[in-house]
Amino acid sequence: MTKLHWEDFAAGNIAEYGPRQVTRDEIIAFASEFDPQPIHLDDEAARASMLGGLSASGWHTCSLAMRMIADGILHNAMSMGAPGVDEVRWIVPLRPDESITLRATVLDTRVSRSRPDMGFVKFRFDLINQGGTTIMTMTSSIMLGRRTAGAAA
Amino acid sequence: MTKLHWEDFAAGNIAEYGPRQVTRDEIIAFASEFDPQPIHLDDEAARASMLGGLSASGWHTCSLAMRMIADGILHNAMSMGAPGVDEVRWIVPLRPDESITLRATVLDTRVSRSRPDMGFVKFRFDLINQGGTTIMTMTSSIMLGRRTAGAAA
Repeated sequence: MTKLHWEDFAAGNIAEYGPRQVTRDEIIAFASEFDPQPIHLDDEAARASMLGGLSASGWHTCSLAMRMIADGILHNAMSMGAPGVDEVRWIVPLRPDESITLRATVLDTRVSRSRPDMGFVKFRFDLINQGGTTIMTMTSSIMLGRRTAGAAA
Repeated sequence: MTKLHWEDFAAGNIAEYGPRQVTRDEIIAFASEFDPQPIHLDDEAARASMLGGLSASGWHTCSLAMRMIADGILHNAMSMGAPGVDEVRWIVPLRPDESITLRATVLDTRVSRSRPDMGFVKFRFDLINQGGTTIMTMTSSIMLGRRTAGAAA
């Protein structure tokens, strides 16, 4: 199976991954380890909060998106990592037993100046729940090996 | 114990939290669940990669920073969540058995326009390893309840 290289992505490409269901136990396990705030751990405290009920840590939501990116895109690509994240917006809470889909839109691609054997693909990721509501957006670049390293972009 | 409110934070405040050690087992467990790329799971593949050895998923590094923010700041504050993240830069990989410290710098504070009972505190977080190298930077705002809700900022 041919692996995806930098050249295989172009601005405007859109793909969807998932769905993936998220359980109440997963939400509480992640929060217990990384974000032990009552709104992510305790029903009563969560109901009394701005969010009106138990919801996943925003970092859990990001990590679930990462898993969908790893399985859907990177697993079959010449991935060379990522320099960071440009922006994350937590718009609507992720609730127990919701089912999420990831929409990946390529915003831009460019060759690395310092390493001509790789390029950057800038994505906008939209995480969408089973009701069609976008619950999180994330903008981030991924580094990918080039098929024709050193050739003009 | 009095909880910290929005008024208790001011631009220029700096605090440090940690240290926190990260084990190889934790790195592999997180990656197995959320970021199953060989560079985060397999020594041999990691040695052959750009990163030259096993390292934590960037999202694991973010989640560890979140735990330090939760324990160090939010646990004793009128936290009302966060709208997202403005920027994350993964500068240097986080390696097994490293010990990390979080430095939190307040960049800016402002009252919410739509909810005068709360305000935003914008932080720059620097995650620093035991050698004094900054391995990740993150800029993010946290929403906090105001002590004197509705009063002039």
